[in-house]
Amino acid sequence: MELTKTPSHSHTIMNELVLPNDTNTLNNLMGGRLLHWMDIVAAIAAQKHSGKTVVTASVDSVSFGKCIRLGDVVTLEAKVSRSFNSSMEIHIVVHAENIPSGEKFKSNEAYYTFVALDRNGTPMKVPSLVPETEEEHKRYDGALRRRQLRLILGGKMKADEATELKALFFPEG
Amino acid sequence: MELTKTPSHSHTIMNELVLPNDTNTLNNLMGGRLLHWMDIVAAIAAQKHSGKTVVTASVDSVSFGKCIRLGDVVTLEAKVSRSFNSSMEIHIVVHAENIPSGEKFKSNEAYYTFVALDRNGTPMKVPSLVPETEEEHKRYDGALRRRQLRLILGGKMKADEATELKALFFPEG
Amino acid sequence: MELTKTPSHSHTIMNELVLPNDTNTLNNLMGGRLLHWMDIVAAIAAQKHSGKTVVTASVDSVSFGKCIRLGDVVTLEAKVSRSFNSSMEIHIVVHAENIPSGEKFKSNEAYYTFVALDRNGTPMKVPSLVPETEEEHKRYDGALRRRQLRLILGGKMKADEATELKALFFPEG
Amino acid sequence: MELTKTPSHSHTIMNELVLPNDTNTLNNLMGGRLLHWMDIVAAIAAQKHSGKTVVTASVDSVSFGKCIRLGDVVTLEAKVSRSFNSSMEIHIVVHAENIPSGEKFKSNEAYYTFVALDRNGTPMKVPSLVPETEEEHKRYDGALRRRQLRLILGGKMKADEATELKALFFPEG
Amino acid sequence: MELTKTPSHSHTIMNELVLPNDTNTLNNLMGGRLLHWMDIVAAIAAQKHSGKTVVTASVDSVSFGKCIRLGDVVTLEAKVSRSFNSSMEIHIVVHAENIPSGEKFKSNEAYYTFVALDRNGTPMKVPSLVPETEEEHKRYDGALRRRQLRLILGGKMKADEATELKALFFPEG
Amino acid sequence: MELTKTPSHSHTIMNELVLPNDTNTLNNLMGGRLLHWMDIVAAIAAQKHSGKTVVTASVDSVSFGKCIRLGDVVTLEAKVSRSFNSSMEIHIVVHAENIPSGEKFKSNEAYYTFVALDRNGTPMKVPSLVPETEEEHKRYDGALRRRQLRLILGGKMKADEATELKALFFPEG
Repeated sequence: MELTKTPSHSHTIMNELVLPNDTNTLNNLMGGRLLHWMDIVAAIAAQKHSGKTVVTASVDSVSFGKCIRLGDVVTLEAKVSRSFNSSMEIHIVVHAENIPSGEKFKSNEAYYTFVALDRNGTPMKVPSLVPETEEEHKRYDGALRRRQLRLILGGKMKADEATELKALFFPEG
Repeated sequence: MELTKTPSHSHTIMNELVLPNDTNTLNNLMGGRLLHWMDIVAAIAAQKHSGKTVVTASVDSVSFGKCIRLGDVVTLEAKVSRSFNSSMEIHIVVHAENIPSGEKFKSNEAYYTFVALDRNGTPMKVPSLVPETEEEHKRYDGALRRRQLRLILGGKMKADEATELKALFFPEG
Repeated sequence: MELTKTPSHSHTIMNELVLPNDTNTLNNLMGGRLLHWMDIVAAIAAQKHSGKTVVTASVDSVSFGKCIRLGDVVTLEAKVSRSFNSSMEIHIVVHAENIPSGEKFKSNEAYYTFVALDRNGTPMKVPSLVPETEEEHKRYDGALRRRQLRLILGGKMKADEATELKALFFPEG
Repeated sequence: MELTKTPSHSHTIMNELVLPNDTNTLNNLMGGRLLHWMDIVAAIAAQKHSGKTVVTASVDSVSFGKCIRLGDVVTLEAKVSRSFNSSMEIHIVVHAENIPSGEKFKSNEAYYTFVALDRNGTPMKVPSLVPETEEEHKRYDGALRRRQLRLILGGKMKADEATELKALFFPEG
Repeated sequence: MELTKTPSHSHTIMNELVLPNDTNTLNNLMGGRLLHWMDIVAAIAAQKHSGKTVVTASVDSVSFGKCIRLGDVVTLEAKVSRSFNSSMEIHIVVHAENIPSGEKFKSNEAYYTFVALDRNGTPMKVPSLVPETEEEHKRYDGALRRRQLRLILGGKMKADEATELKALFFPEG
Repeated sequence: MELTKTPSHSHTIMNELVLPNDTNTLNNLMGGRLLHWMDIVAAIAAQKHSGKTVVTASVDSVSFGKCIRLGDVVTLEAKVSRSFNSSMEIHIVVHAENIPSGEKFKSNEAYYTFVALDRNGTPMKVPSLVPETEEEHKRYDGALRRRQLRLILGGKMKADEATELKALFFPEG
C-alpha cells in the first residue's frame, strides 16, 4: 500500500439525469435521492483512496438550496479531504444545470465519512492524505474541527475537550 | 387549517426489506440508501403535519453504527419535533432486525427539515406543534439549538449570537 | 421457539409514496404495484410471527375500488390472522391519502398465505396464533372457510367436503 | 370500434429474467413481483382487446407452487377470456424455465379483471369476445361463475342468487 | 446436447410498457433503455439455443426511427440467425403500438452476438443452426458478411481478407 | 447560439457502481445495461453541445471485451466528435476498475448519434465542432466514413457512392 496519496488521486465525477421517479409532485428532485447519489460518488472516491471496500460512517449536516428540476443534469464531484487511521472524510460538491434554459448553479456541499474494511468487515489502515492546493489545505485543516463536532453530536466527546471546535465557533477568540 | 397539531398526528412508520441492490459487495446496506428512506418517511410525516407538499431543506449530521445486512427488516419512525413559520423539523429513528437470527438493534437517529409549499412553490405557513410526552418536550426544546447549529454551519449566523447553541455544547456552563 | 403468539406481535405498517413509475398514463397506481407492496408488508408480518424466512403460497381474491393517484400516500397494515402447521394467513388492509386535498379512504383488504422455510427450503413449524380482539377472533374463525375455498379453487378439495365453506356462502342455511 | 374480437387478438407474451432484486434471501422469486408482472401482461392484453386505457379491477385467488429461482426465465401468456360491458376477464398462465439445467415447469394460472376507461376516467364499452378453441369456450363459460364468486366475496351479491356459482361447487348437482 | 436447432426453437417475445422513467423530458423512450430491452430478449433467445449462460459479445449498428412514446407497448422478437463455435448471432425486431390511437409501427431491427459460457466462464460449443424459412436462410447467409464487418471494425481482420463483406458493399460486383 | 464549440465543452464523465441487478448469474455486467449507461452519458454530452433536448438516432457497432464484474467501478467519458446540421456524433470510452484487486482496464469504445429537438420535436440546428487535439481531429475526419457506413447499413446509400468509406476499408488503396 502507498503510504500517502493526494486528493486528485481520488477525484471522482458523476453526472446524473433527473428522471420522473427522482422527483416529487412539484417536479423537484427529492432530497433523499440526492443524498443517495452523494453517498455513491463519495464511496467511489473513498475506494480509490483506500483501495478497499468502504462503508459509510457518517454524513455531516447538508442544506439544500434552490430546487433541482426534472430533466436537469446533476454533476457531483468528490475527493478525500482528510484521512484518519481507517476512516476518510470526503468532500462533495453538487452542481445542477438545466441545459435548454442555460441555467447552471451550485446546489450544495457536504462531507461524508467512510471506513475501509477487509473481506471480514475488519477496519483497515488507509493512506495519509497530502493536500496540494490552497483549498485542499483549508479543508484538511478544517477536518479536525468537523470531526470533533461529529464526536460531540454523537455523544462520544465532551465539549470542553473539543479545543479545535472552539475555533469554529469562536474564530476570533 | 388547524392552528396546532400534536407529534402523534404526524407519526409515520415505514418498513423496508433490504434487497440486493441496496447493498455493497459485503452485503451491507449502503448508507445513501438509508438516507433516501429516511427522507421519504420524514417527508410523509411533514406532509401529514402541514397538509401540503413539502421539500427537504436540510439534514442534520447522521452517524451510522452497526451494519444493516441483506435481508434485514428496517423500521423507520418519524414525527414532527418542532415547526417554525413554514418549516418543520422531523425526528427519525431507525431500527434493524434480522428475523431468522432474532437480532434487533437501533441503527441511528436523525433530524431532517422540510418546507411546505403551495402549487407554485411558495412557502406556506404550517401549524404549530404542541408536544405531549416528556421526550417530545425535550426534542421540542432542543430544536432551537439544532437550528442555530444549522445556521452557523450554513454560514447564516455568527457563533457569538448562538446563545441557545452554547447550552448544547456547554450544558453545565 | 415460543409456542403461541398474538396478532399484535406481527403487526406491520408500511407507508409508500406513489411515484411516476408506479402509475399508468391516467396517473393511477397500477394494481400490480399494489399487489407487490401488499406481498412485502405481509411477508414481513409472516417473518415476525414465524421467526423464519417465508415464501408466498397464495393470495386470495382482491378487488380494487377507488383509484389511488400519483403523489398519494399508501398505508398498508398487516398481521397474522391464523397459522396452520407451517403456513400463516396474513390479513392486509390498505388506505390511501391525498394529503394536499385532505382526502383519505380505505382502498382494499386482502389475505395472503405464506410458508415458513429453513435455509434448505424445508417447511418449518410456526407458532399458533392466539387472537385477542373481537375482530381478530372473527378473522381467526373465518380462516378455515377461506382455506377450504383455496383448496377447492386449487382443485385439492371437493365441494361436498367443504363443510366450513358452506357457512360462508349460506350463512343462514 | 369492432363489435367482437377473438381471444387470439389480445394474446400477449412476456418473458422476464429473474434478477437479484426480484428474489428473497433464499434466491426464490418473490410472489409479489410475479403478481406485478402478471398485472402488466394482463393489462396489455386488455388494452389490445378494448383499444383503451385500462385499470385493474380485481385479481382472483392465485396459488404459487414450485419456487422460481434467480436466473430463471419466466414466460407469461395472457388473453381475454370473456368481456362484459366495460370490463374484461383476462386469463394468465405462467411458466418458468431454468435453461442451464433444462428444467421447465408451469408455475401458475390466474384471472385478472380490468375496466376500460376514457381520458376522463369514465368506463367505456368494450367489444364482445367470441371464443374459438375448446379451451377458450370452457374459460368463457366459467367466467360467469368466477364473476359471481367475486361479487359474493366482495359482498355485492347474496349466495342464494348465485345460480352459476353452485355449478362450480356442486358440479354433479 | 443436440447438434442442431432451428430458429423457431429460440424464438422469444417480450412486451414492455413504456413507463415515465424510461422517457426523456419530451416523453419519448430513451434509446439506451430500448438497447437494454433488446439485450435481454436476445440473451434469452441465445440461452434457449445454447442451453447455457451467455454474455453479450457485440451489438451491430442500430438506428432509431420514429419516436416511441410514454404509454406505448413495445414488442420485441428475437431468434438466432446463425451460430458459430461458441457464439450466436441473434436477430431482433422491435414494434411499438399506441393502443388508444390505434397506431402501430416497426421501430427498428438489430443483431446482437452472444457467447455461451460454463460456470467458470469458459466458452462452450453451441448447436449449429438449421434455417427453415426463406427469410431465415437470407439472414443465415448474411451472417458471414456481418461477422467480417465486425472483425474489421474491431481491428481483427484486414479489409482485403474480407471476401464476404465485398458482397455487401458491391452486391452487383 | 454560439456557432462553434470545442469537444472539451461537451466532455462528460459518469461513474457507476455495478450493482447486483446489473449482472447476470455469473456476476458479470450485462451488455444491455452498459449500452444504457453509454446512451445516458452521450445524451448529456449532446445536450451540452447543442443546448437542446436530444434523442438517440443511432448507435454504431460496439464490441464487449473483458467482462466487468459485480462491485466494479465503471467510468464512462463522452464528447462530441463531429456535428452535422441537427445531429451530433458522440464518442464514448468506457473503463472498468476493480478497486480491491487494483485491476483497471479499458472495456470498450462506441459512437452514438443524437438529434437536437425543440419542444415540438422539430430538429434544430446545432453548433459546428472545432476539434483541438490530434485525436479529436482524427475522430472528426473519421466521422464522414462512419456516417457513410451508417447510411449503407441503413439502406439509405449505395456502396458505390460511399467514397469516404472506401478509405476506411481500404486505407492503403
